[in-house]
Amino acid sequence: MTDLDQLDRPREACGVAGMWSLKGSGVEVARNLFFALYALQHRGQEAAGICTWDGKRLHVKKGQGLVSQVFREKRIKKLKGRSGIAHNRYSTTGGNDLANVQPFYLNTNDGTIAVAHNGNLTNARTLRRALEVGWTSTSDTEVIAQALARPLDDEERAGAPDWPGRLERLLREAQGAYSIVVQTPEGIYALRDPHGFRPLCLGVLKEEGRPQAWIAASESCALSPIGAEMVREVLPGEIVRLDDEGITTVRAPQPGLFEQTALCIFEYVYFARPDSRVDGQSVHVTRQRMGWRLAEEAKVEGDDVVVIGVPDSSLVSAMAYAARAELPYTEGLIKNRYIGRTFIEPSQAMRQNKVRLKFNAVRDNLEGKRVVLVDDSIVRGTTMEQLITLVREQGGAREVHVRVAAPPIKHPCFMGVDLASHGELIAHEHDEDEIAAVVGADSLVYLSLEGLHAAVDEGAATAGGHCNACFSGKYPVDVRACLADEDQKHSLAGRALRIAEAV
Amino acid sequence: MTDLDQLDRPREACGVAGMWSLKGSGVEVARNLFFALYALQHRGQEAAGICTWDGKRLHVKKGQGLVSQVFREKRIKKLKGRSGIAHNRYSTTGGNDLANVQPFYLNTNDGTIAVAHNGNLTNARTLRRALEVGWTSTSDTEVIAQALARPLDDEERAGAPDWPGRLERLLREAQGAYSIVVQTPEGIYALRDPHGFRPLCLGVLKEEGRPQAWIAASESCALSPIGAEMVREVLPGEIVRLDDEGITTVRAPQPGLFEQTALCIFEYVYFARPDSRVDGQSVHVTRQRMGWRLAEEAKVEGDDVVVIGVPDSSLVSAMAYAARAELPYTEGLIKNRYIGRTFIEPSQAMRQNKVRLKFNAVRDNLEGKRVVLVDDSIVRGTTMEQLITLVREQGGAREVHVRVAAPPIKHPCFMGVDLASHGELIAHEHDEDEIAAVVGADSLVYLSLEGLHAAVDEGAATAGGHCNACFSGKYPVDVRACLADEDQKHSLAGRALRIAEAV
Amino acid sequence: MTDLDQLDRPREACGVAGMWSLKGSGVEVARNLFFALYALQHRGQEAAGICTWDGKRLHVKKGQGLVSQVFREKRIKKLKGRSGIAHNRYSTTGGNDLANVQPFYLNTNDGTIAVAHNGNLTNARTLRRALEVGWTSTSDTEVIAQALARPLDDEERAGAPDWPGRLERLLREAQGAYSIVVQTPEGIYALRDPHGFRPLCLGVLKEEGRPQAWIAASESCALSPIGAEMVREVLPGEIVRLDDEGITTVRAPQPGLFEQTALCIFEYVYFARPDSRVDGQSVHVTRQRMGWRLAEEAKVEGDDVVVIGVPDSSLVSAMAYAARAELPYTEGLIKNRYIGRTFIEPSQAMRQNKVRLKFNAVRDNLEGKRVVLVDDSIVRGTTMEQLITLVREQGGAREVHVRVAAPPIKHPCFMGVDLASHGELIAHEHDEDEIAAVVGADSLVYLSLEGLHAAVDEGAATAGGHCNACFSGKYPVDVRACLADEDQKHSLAGRALRIAEAV
Amino acid sequence: MTDLDQLDRPREACGVAGMWSLKGSGVEVARNLFFALYALQHRGQEAAGICTWDGKRLHVKKGQGLVSQVFREKRIKKLKGRSGIAHNRYSTTGGNDLANVQPFYLNTNDGTIAVAHNGNLTNARTLRRALEVGWTSTSDTEVIAQALARPLDDEERAGAPDWPGRLERLLREAQGAYSIVVQTPEGIYALRDPHGFRPLCLGVLKEEGRPQAWIAASESCALSPIGAEMVREVLPGEIVRLDDEGITTVRAPQPGLFEQTALCIFEYVYFARPDSRVDGQSVHVTRQRMGWRLAEEAKVEGDDVVVIGVPDSSLVSAMAYAARAELPYTEGLIKNRYIGRTFIEPSQAMRQNKVRLKFNAVRDNLEGKRVVLVDDSIVRGTTMEQLITLVREQGGAREVHVRVAAPPIKHPCFMGVDLASHGELIAHEHDEDEIAAVVGADSLVYLSLEGLHAAVDEGAATAGGHCNACFSGKYPVDVRACLADEDQKHSLAGRALRIAEAV
Repeated sequence: MTDLDQLDRPREACGVAGMWSLKGSGVEVARNLFFALYALQHRGQEAAGICTWDGKRLHVKKGQGLVSQVFREKRIKKLKGRSGIAHNRYSTTGGNDLANVQPFYLNTNDGTIAVAHNGNLTNARTLRRALEVGWTSTSDTEVIAQALARPLDDEERAGAPDWPGRLERLLREAQGAYSIVVQTPEGIYALRDPHGFRPLCLGVLKEEGRPQAWIAASESCALSPIGAEMVREVLPGEIVRLDDEGITTVRAPQPGLFEQTALCIFEYVYFARPDSRVDGQSVHVTRQRMGWRLAEEAKVEGDDVVVIGVPDSSLVSAMAYAARAELPYTEGLIKNRYIGRTFIEPSQAMRQNKVRLKFNAVRDNLEGKRVVLVDDSIVRGTTMEQLITLVREQGGAREVHVRVAAPPIKHPCFMGVDLASHGELIAHEHDEDEIAAVVGADSLVYLSLEGLHAAVDEGAATAGGHCNACFSGKYPVDVRACLADEDQKHSLAGRALRIAEAV
Repeated sequence: MTDLDQLDRPREACGVAGMWSLKGSGVEVARNLFFALYALQHRGQEAAGICTWDGKRLHVKKGQGLVSQVFREKRIKKLKGRSGIAHNRYSTTGGNDLANVQPFYLNTNDGTIAVAHNGNLTNARTLRRALEVGWTSTSDTEVIAQALARPLDDEERAGAPDWPGRLERLLREAQGAYSIVVQTPEGIYALRDPHGFRPLCLGVLKEEGRPQAWIAASESCALSPIGAEMVREVLPGEIVRLDDEGITTVRAPQPGLFEQTALCIFEYVYFARPDSRVDGQSVHVTRQRMGWRLAEEAKVEGDDVVVIGVPDSSLVSAMAYAARAELPYTEGLIKNRYIGRTFIEPSQAMRQNKVRLKFNAVRDNLEGKRVVLVDDSIVRGTTMEQLITLVREQGGAREVHVRVAAPPIKHPCFMGVDLASHGELIAHEHDEDEIAAVVGADSLVYLSLEGLHAAVDEGAATAGGHCNACFSGKYPVDVRACLADEDQKHSLAGRALRIAEAV
Repeated sequence: MTDLDQLDRPREACGVAGMWSLKGSGVEVARNLFFALYALQHRGQEAAGICTWDGKRLHVKKGQGLVSQVFREKRIKKLKGRSGIAHNRYSTTGGNDLANVQPFYLNTNDGTIAVAHNGNLTNARTLRRALEVGWTSTSDTEVIAQALARPLDDEERAGAPDWPGRLERLLREAQGAYSIVVQTPEGIYALRDPHGFRPLCLGVLKEEGRPQAWIAASESCALSPIGAEMVREVLPGEIVRLDDEGITTVRAPQPGLFEQTALCIFEYVYFARPDSRVDGQSVHVTRQRMGWRLAEEAKVEGDDVVVIGVPDSSLVSAMAYAARAELPYTEGLIKNRYIGRTFIEPSQAMRQNKVRLKFNAVRDNLEGKRVVLVDDSIVRGTTMEQLITLVREQGGAREVHVRVAAPPIKHPCFMGVDLASHGELIAHEHDEDEIAAVVGADSLVYLSLEGLHAAVDEGAATAGGHCNACFSGKYPVDVRACLADEDQKHSLAGRALRIAEAV
Repeated sequence: MTDLDQLDRPREACGVAGMWSLKGSGVEVARNLFFALYALQHRGQEAAGICTWDGKRLHVKKGQGLVSQVFREKRIKKLKGRSGIAHNRYSTTGGNDLANVQPFYLNTNDGTIAVAHNGNLTNARTLRRALEVGWTSTSDTEVIAQALARPLDDEERAGAPDWPGRLERLLREAQGAYSIVVQTPEGIYALRDPHGFRPLCLGVLKEEGRPQAWIAASESCALSPIGAEMVREVLPGEIVRLDDEGITTVRAPQPGLFEQTALCIFEYVYFARPDSRVDGQSVHVTRQRMGWRLAEEAKVEGDDVVVIGVPDSSLVSAMAYAARAELPYTEGLIKNRYIGRTFIEPSQAMRQNKVRLKFNAVRDNLEGKRVVLVDDSIVRGTTMEQLITLVREQGGAREVHVRVAAPPIKHPCFMGVDLASHGELIAHEHDEDEIAAVVGADSLVYLSLEGLHAAVDEGAATAGGHCNACFSGKYPVDVRACLADEDQKHSLAGRALRIAEAV
């Protein structure tokens, strides 16, 4: 399979959502969750699932492919109930392993639960061994679900399951990145790990001013399409419940838990949709500021210069770069609007320049020009090399100057993003000049890490810090186990000991 | 869905098989298991599955429908490995619940295992509660698998998992009927519960006189098609292992465990294929003896008598009845050879006599005759009523005398067979004369329980007893929990608390 | 694909049905056609189709596999309209060529028609060339449909299409075997070729004594399941219409057309269901008479003789043989009731004796006996050889004497049956003794052609003749073109110039 | 089904491609055609098909959905042969009517042909009636194919089919719009109707400077992805053949035929991909000129003005408008990159503003501004109304001034585009002020027809005219039959008398 949509781009692991509606509200939970997933499609395109709870039974539909491919009207109608959770997944294991598609559900001695999870547990293997059960999948989500199925030591006297208590235990025991929604008979729980690596926001669906339903979703861009208003974000280390009482904090971030916020800074650079608000600010505007900073740090001087961006994700910073640098902006690359996954291998001839399958250069705008090509990030560098060839050969550019609106990616991510291993990252061992030589650019400059932080911090609502480990190598949590895995195979995939393969 | 093949017939729960082949033998394990399932198709027509172990990974294919519908050549080829287990299932829960299709596999801390199971645990609910894990299905097989995943208390010092020890613990803890095959990295284990309710036999596949592979299968009829020879049957309470050493008894039936054999006597009456040997004797011949006994106990006297049977399962005893009673045997009912499951509902008119969809009467053979109609069992009586109408109206019979080659079924089965609840069984509250009146027969006589036992015991290899609870109501194990469930809904289905429903 | 159900058996090409119901009758035409196809399943197991006409539009569902696999309740409900036609097909071309699945429908300038056809046109190629149109399939049915789409020369002045006239032209122009049902806006037409090679009968569906619908079907066994009564058979060369007026003969068999009836005698030997009536007599009883004749012609003398038949189709003649020869009949071969098509190739070991996949021998009944094995026909002889091995080795028979309840098949069929080419037919160049040697029988005797005719003629309602070309080589029509094709590849397949292959 | 990708946009009917490669060239024709379709996906998203010719047989794969959904690697490999044709389709009939999916193939008496067609025959009904054949579909393509299957009157003496002659007859008889590729055994034929309504270009695939294959495709954007170079466009009324000799004109545009070029001007406005070249000029640059013209004709004066476009198709003209008007351009609407078809109906609440499912407004850029919203066309006006609401409510715009980069659409298209009927077109009976009032704009101005022509003509390579009937109502061909159909139902759909419906 060839994913022409994401040539040499980091891959996000997941998008999650959960909704609870009032009895008699008439809110179709599954339908709303579908359109929430539809809006979160950029966070995972390999599989999707929705499960709903009708008070007696879970109704589940999972499948592989885009959200719009997995669901049919008939199935949405069968997903009955006034609460539910949903999940978009970018598979990191390859293989068509439906067992790993979320949500994951279990029938516990204390009732049925379902879990959807965005992130990566860095101590999953330890947790797995500590729970003496058999596993049906290799996903972290099953670890989370079985951990929640295990009663607390002193729970029995209560006569009822203490879900908040079990979730709090999870916050103590699970390390790494996790934004989770949990369906229980008594409500939807939503929580973020103490570092808050992955975003998670809360919204409300009103009718004539009165709340009808509450929703938790990975990004705020999922709210507007379903007519919901944003309430706030779940805080790092916080556990909230969505039920007939609305949104209740059942465990506030603990001083001991809430050590240090480390929101993934790459959400601003690439993952999050530009129309989402993360940590109180518009992602689109943040990217404009990255473009401005980049222009200040690395303007291309001289005549006959035009600025172009790589569609779609880099156009904002490219336009901002051009504006701040007072250089003309133009469209230099046209993208096939219908690009996406295909199961057909390109022929040998096409593989020599795969980006031609995705882009054409607009010769009328580029011929004879000194082109500034703005991109948002470079992972392996292979795509950039082909883009430059395209801009020169098909576009007729005289020079190509690459400007990247983020710092060099030098380290893998172990918090739920599939970047690449150390050895695959072009910036791990090469500096800007070397990279320019490899990709064939006349010059190549990255935004500084300070510049990126400045662009992001300027509008941040909270004083929260960011995880920049992929740029700096400074991981906020212990990743030694992950680094050990990397020796075998990069990042998440190394952990994917498939127990069974459907044939 | 209408199963025209099994109108008013008891439903067997399952058929199982497991195979281990020698390295380099060239035996294609998945292909052999497929044809074993194909031969065991009568034990379960709703779903099938095969999983194989290639030394590193399980390969699994499960699906709904007949074995020949579930598997394609391409998939058999992908089921790699020199050992594996397989399963045919008759669904007792309705619904298209792929999660309940066997084999069931788990990744334990001590390696990957897979389980296939024929029977019914009468204390499944208790076992389920004792194991503090979350459950992904409602099947007993998951209970068995998670019970095996749990280490023994003193296992840790050994440094290796003690699978025989865990299986022995299972024999102690699990109550009810279970013939099980388990795939582990070190071999295939096969065991029968201490009562030996369900059959399980052992065979060997040779080439030029040398063993190449060993197989365990529910019935011996699975051996000949794949060219295997029968070795023996697994004993009640015995655990054997199939590995490179051949067939080894790892736990002999214990005096304390091996209380009392109670092989299901209905295997002889209806379930087992006539070409199987059970407990050392031919099922076909046993049925002949039932027909002879029935003739001795309930011969129809007078002129113009012809004997006919209900195809296919009653033809043997009908012919034997005719021979012993010295009455002419003829073919009175022709069955559509292609009958089977259909998803199309009969029209109102057709529902009035569903057996017409399956049978036609041969008027040339029946017109004006006093017909003795031999059947092997009556469950609800509805089909018998329609058959008699057919024989009278379409066949032109003057009289219809029903002779049943088994005693009246008065009680449900809780050992893995889906009969019916007390209230649905026509013989639970009615005697022969009343039943004759209900179904419209001129007379109706069952074989006596003594007659059945005599027919079966005559050729039994062992001194083993039989479970005849469906006739006598004397259950060999504690079934109070099952009887309590029956108040809600009959037999197994009452336990089927579906946790999730795929939509 | 391996069709274990029809090892070395002739393959019938098709079953057809058509129904017209009165307005307001409430008869669900598609549902009734489904169960008619279900009863005709033995005439074709590779594909099935139903189309209905709602007064404005055809509704069509076709698919590959058994009838019960092709149709789902939802689809039956969508097949609206109070008339329709249906078809079962045994594919002769291999390949999954949905374009060739019937019914075939066309939108003509004079309205929409659909055609279902049982048989084989011996001059299809000539007809195809004469019609200067492009073809979307290679089926004879398209030839018939396009021939019907072509207006008559003098039709235009009528102002309305003359369907009877076009059908009569078809009777004149088309050579070979064809029993056809045609859906037109004005009624269902049913016709048989002038020789009447293939059967076609008429029935009526009544409610409270009043006709509600009329049906045409290949065999009468399709009537009883849907509660219809038989009316009569369509005569060779006759065209009838089913419409609100009931059943009307629109073209009686013409003296010029109705040259000589030549009903396929193999319908009695093997194709037709035993519970059908063909040409006024019970097929089951005809087969009894074949068994009696066979006993008279070829009784096995001596001690220790038992008679067995090959299930299912030969049991009737085997029992009749035993009765007439005054020899004991017993069950010697047990067949897997669930046998059928499978996509899984047997292993090398299994291929050495494929019949073991289908049959087991009952040793208790055969050991040490001199076994008379009655079969209904031998095509290539390969299966017979394996059966005899099975009866000897697994059954322990001392001798095996084969008695065949039909004459030797020496010639291919070009009238819609897929037998085999001359070179493949074991009896084409071998006499009985040679065949006995090849298959390993102690003796082998066929029923004489006279004996077969006597058995069939005894109960025939009409004075009609029979086609016995497969035995005698005397073809009632010109088959030179077909014989020429045979040089390339046998019978129908040689004509199947696939124009396109779905991938 | 909801097509969020094309809310209130005209729908193009089709994209076509055909390729011929040299023997031994190693060019994988099916793979290249796949990627050509992939690049032409914007011309039709409902179904796709490829057929190849291996010298003996056509290989065909058709299916519904996007190109990437229809084809799998396995199928591409099965599409053997060194020539083939391909087709993308936008369904105009609704229903899942696979019979209408192209390419359409026929086995004629003179060999097998396949046809793929972009356009609409305005005299299809007349042609259909003149050909006295039965029809299997309702598509114009079948009409074209059957017309080609019919021999020429004087062809017979030639001894070989005269495909160029038959195609020339088609050019004389068929009226309306048609760009066609035809697979014949002797080569691929490509032709455009005498008016040249729909584009069709020619390219060559070289290796080391030597031609390996030739391709015809609807747009030049299909060439670059597969590494082909553009050769030229097929001329209106021209017939070319692609075979081992390369590209040959077999019939030059005739003076009599080549009456008047009428290339669809809407290809520039919306249909064609911006990176295609049509009639010798870049579509992207043409759209820039439309934006410039629009600014000259309808600049918004005053303070606080920002210019935004509707992604993606209007961004080019919006930027050009801003540049020429010297107004600031900004991103005001963010589109979900993964938008597309979905089978899930929006809830009642979502339906009130469907564009929210597709777009979010960037409040930071719009709040308090006087927004110029540039769009490329308005069909019904419903989407524009919702967009304006979004820009005001979510974006906080003070005023919204709509500028449309094309003239008002007042008339339906009968040349292969699914616009809308007269009654549905908002501009059919309303002027600019009325439309502004309906959609809630503070002002609304269209580009003048002169302005559009000036923008397009400026770079046109040929002196060819354009069809602007949707703006002017001046149809270049007789459309009276189409207008009559419109009374029943709009445009193409009115002709779609479905003869059969798959259920």
